Amino acid sequence: MTVQDVTPQWESVLGRENVITQAECLRAAATATFLSERRIPAILRPSTCEQVQQILGIATQSGTPVYPVSSGKNWGYGSAAPASDGCVLLDLSRMNRILDFSEELGFVTVEPGVTQGQLFDFLRSRNLRLWMDATGSSPNCSLIGNTIERGFGHTPYGDHFGNVCGFEVVLATGEKLETGTARFAGSPAAPVYRWGLGPSLDGLFTQSNFGVVTRMTFWLMPAPEYFQAFFFRCDNDEDLPAVVNALRQLRMSGTLRSAIHVGNDYKVLGGMQQYPWEETGGSTPLTPGQMGAFRRRLNFGAWNGSGGLYGTRAQVSEARRLLRRALAGKVSRLQFLDDRRLALASRFSGLFGLISRWDLSRALQLVRPLYGLLKGQPSDRPLASAYWRKRTPPPERMNPDRDRCGLLWCSPVAPAEGSHAQILATLSSEILLRHGFEPMLSITLITERALICVISITYDRESPGEDQRAIACYVELRQQLSAKGYVSYRLGIQSMGEMNAQGPYARFLESIKRAADPAGILAPGRYDGVRYDAGQYETAQVQTVGDSRTGS
Amino acid sequence: MTVQDVTPQWESVLGRENVITQAECLRAAATATFLSERRIPAILRPSTCEQVQQILGIATQSGTPVYPVSSGKNWGYGSAAPASDGCVLLDLSRMNRILDFSEELGFVTVEPGVTQGQLFDFLRSRNLRLWMDATGSSPNCSLIGNTIERGFGHTPYGDHFGNVCGFEVVLATGEKLETGTARFAGSPAAPVYRWGLGPSLDGLFTQSNFGVVTRMTFWLMPAPEYFQAFFFRCDNDEDLPAVVNALRQLRMSGTLRSAIHVGNDYKVLGGMQQYPWEETGGSTPLTPGQMGAFRRRLNFGAWNGSGGLYGTRAQVSEARRLLRRALAGKVSRLQFLDDRRLALASRFSGLFGLISRWDLSRALQLVRPLYGLLKGQPSDRPLASAYWRKRTPPPERMNPDRDRCGLLWCSPVAPAEGSHAQILATLSSEILLRHGFEPMLSITLITERALICVISITYDRESPGEDQRAIACYVELRQQLSAKGYVSYRLGIQSMGEMNAQGPYARFLESIKRAADPAGILAPGRYDGVRYDAGQYETAQVQTVGDSRTGS
Repeated sequence: MTVQDVTPQWESVLGRENVITQAECLRAAATATFLSERRIPAILRPSTCEQVQQILGIATQSGTPVYPVSSGKNWGYGSAAPASDGCVLLDLSRMNRILDFSEELGFVTVEPGVTQGQLFDFLRSRNLRLWMDATGSSPNCSLIGNTIERGFGHTPYGDHFGNVCGFEVVLATGEKLETGTARFAGSPAAPVYRWGLGPSLDGLFTQSNFGVVTRMTFWLMPAPEYFQAFFFRCDNDEDLPAVVNALRQLRMSGTLRSAIHVGNDYKVLGGMQQYPWEETGGSTPLTPGQMGAFRRRLNFGAWNGSGGLYGTRAQVSEARRLLRRALAGKVSRLQFLDDRRLALASRFSGLFGLISRWDLSRALQLVRPLYGLLKGQPSDRPLASAYWRKRTPPPERMNPDRDRCGLLWCSPVAPAEGSHAQILATLSSEILLRHGFEPMLSITLITERALICVISITYDRESPGEDQRAIACYVELRQQLSAKGYVSYRLGIQSMGEMNAQGPYARFLESIKRAADPAGILAPGRYDGVRYDAGQYETAQVQTVGDSRTGS
Repeated sequence: MTVQDVTPQWESVLGRENVITQAECLRAAATATFLSERRIPAILRPSTCEQVQQILGIATQSGTPVYPVSSGKNWGYGSAAPASDGCVLLDLSRMNRILDFSEELGFVTVEPGVTQGQLFDFLRSRNLRLWMDATGSSPNCSLIGNTIERGFGHTPYGDHFGNVCGFEVVLATGEKLETGTARFAGSPAAPVYRWGLGPSLDGLFTQSNFGVVTRMTFWLMPAPEYFQAFFFRCDNDEDLPAVVNALRQLRMSGTLRSAIHVGNDYKVLGGMQQYPWEETGGSTPLTPGQMGAFRRRLNFGAWNGSGGLYGTRAQVSEARRLLRRALAGKVSRLQFLDDRRLALASRFSGLFGLISRWDLSRALQLVRPLYGLLKGQPSDRPLASAYWRKRTPPPERMNPDRDRCGLLWCSPVAPAEGSHAQILATLSSEILLRHGFEPMLSITLITERALICVISITYDRESPGEDQRAIACYVELRQQLSAKGYVSYRLGIQSMGEMNAQGPYARFLESIKRAADPAGILAPGRYDGVRYDAGQYETAQVQTVGDSRTGS
């Protein structure tokens, strides 16, 4: 049965206006920030769980592959584009209700279309003394979408999947189930206790194609009595390991309770401005030598860290003392910022610039969104760095897919140890520079013991050959990281082959998949180890090895 | 094929001495702390994962049901007794190697036979600056066994399943798989990052019969610079809700980072002594009026709380201030204890008794194990309360199964709100007293938002009819709790029917089960909703309704 045959059934469920088949819309939805062209035959836009059930029931009966996205803002990992070709897009963005919340217990229950910005506005409009966690992506990102990818943010609730419970899931058959204690009628523990009774299933529905999550409860932290952000920097690349070790100890002791981000110089510059086309006379990549000059001129370090201190004034003050002690001699600068100081700095930034030669207003431009993220305030400011290599400034309403920004993220996870941070930084810098890209790196201490290094391959898709060079760079990067045992914490649609499920593990996953999706229609290729287009992939790789030789 | 037919195969894998068939041993292994007689045809004692694989392979081929236990100390929930009749016991206690550890990253990787006491000794003997978490059960309990049941302890790592990763699992077919990033060769993240890549599977192997966990990594907290325990009490039952709410707020704000336990008067008395047979002239249950007299005489409250403060001296001092402020007017006493004070008190307890009329040495007997548990030191002292209704004192080497202690635990989970704590306490007290048992209750704030109320039905199995009365009490308790939506966080082997998986949820679980265990030989009835012996169960229930009428 073709998609055309099934469309009338879907239209009868959703109404004509919610079954999109205009070529332009389909093309836009299939466009990511890297080479990933997909044919999407239609977009379905349900507004209720019942509609999702019906749609999936029809898909199973007709054997039509369907790929769910929440807001489709999975930038750097594939945007809204399905993991395999020919999938009907199940766009859940109209399911955007906030279903429940409690200020006392600190939770909110939402549908997949609820965005970071929407929740932020909700909390603010009701004057709730609760802080959410936000990723540094965009206020328009779905909370559920990000959590299902096991994304992370900046506050003590930064490990998103670690702070949710009570999923409602629609299986490919159209059947619905609830996880945790939500499946028991009237269970008051449903929004607060995650493990449920019997096997705990939440994990199955993250990074998988076993079901469509249509509801999730997010835990929210109570607004602390006092908040202070800290910022530090290291002048030399070699300072990184000692800093990571010191931060890990502070995380493990509970003094630091939030995700700590450390970005390298390229990452910081990319957050402040676009590629310096003029200064470099148009040559790429920006060399470490050139980078050094920017560091000195714009006053940032080889590594630049930020984090938050949350608590009473006394708790924050003690954390500050311990942080100072732990970083003494390891960083060249450690500064603290709170609401009052930030307001002051903003007021006097012009004056400050006059007397200090340091352009505070420019620094504030970078600091303010970071500061906000540490308080769980979503911002689209970090998204501007996707326009790094573009020749024109980011537009008012940014859309990296439409604007043909090139962005490929590779994000290995490792123990939060200096030695691993150093290996990841050195290895990825060497590879990216050799392939002609700036190594924009951030290292996040995501838990007490683990760090995630997000490596951005940022380029201009308008620049001929760059799409292929970027993929080739990514492929080599992953190969070299894998050789050292570094696994990605998350995959882009181009690299699901890295799932690398083999033997009994693969068979076990496959049998769950068969049970949940007997017709195999739900998100084929998504985190199931099936490489969607090996041909195209290998071609790209071969091409680039050639290109790179030519270039050297 | 009968078990006798398969025995030679098992003997060839394990050696004769590790296939136990002596009637006495089998009877002992099948004995729990309540009515649960099972026929166990043999006990298998492998020492390696490979042997477990071979045993399960043979079991699948021959269709022999096998039930794994780690240390078999699941007291109050069934001890080592299988969830259904006729299972061969797979005793993993010989697999007791500590396979890996890191002081810097705070983890230890162990086999199922590794006990709390063994890990504690390991940490101490190596002078590692790491604290484990311990349950108040026995030093001889398996770490993995408790975690698979999602048990909990007292420190910031009290939610055991929340602080582990990297399972090695043998499926019923004998196939082996690893969860997290452990399945990738040489992944340095394996012992520190839990979610892995792709669907996260750990939860599937807790409270389930999908596989035998043969390895797990436990995270350990770094020993804090300073530790202080706190103890408080409420004189009246009605004080409980306000205290629970205050504690929840302190947990949510991060000021309290550990599990907080609040025990009622019966629980405390049961921790101090056996049933006062003389004072009551042999009548049971101990009435609330009689209990009041004990409270006054022995100087404890209607509710008695304890918890730990961990950090630097300044962090602990600030937490103390906040705790004092939060509990002011809500508790009648709030005391703090550290190593120095405890040593002093121990030295002067005799003298103190002379001048204060309060028997400090007796109080210390109760306080010392609790204090130790807050530091992750396992103790078998709490186990003595299983002997509450016995007429002779607990023996040196306690074994509640052998000694026919009666103990049935029922443990509903609820939001950490005063109103829920109150309902659980009132409801269970009324039911237990009416059935002739003392309502020994503890309420634990296990996470920031959830509490678990452990209700102990403690009796003497030697007392005629008590086994039946206890089950009847349990059944009514669960019925009334369920009617209000309170789900158990964990089930005993007698109550797996409460799993209550229905509809798509049940079908989904069943299909995973079929995939993991095609012959259905692994722990049939365990957390899969199949009530193992409804006949016996219903009989017990009917009998007891009769008994209870006679008694009233």
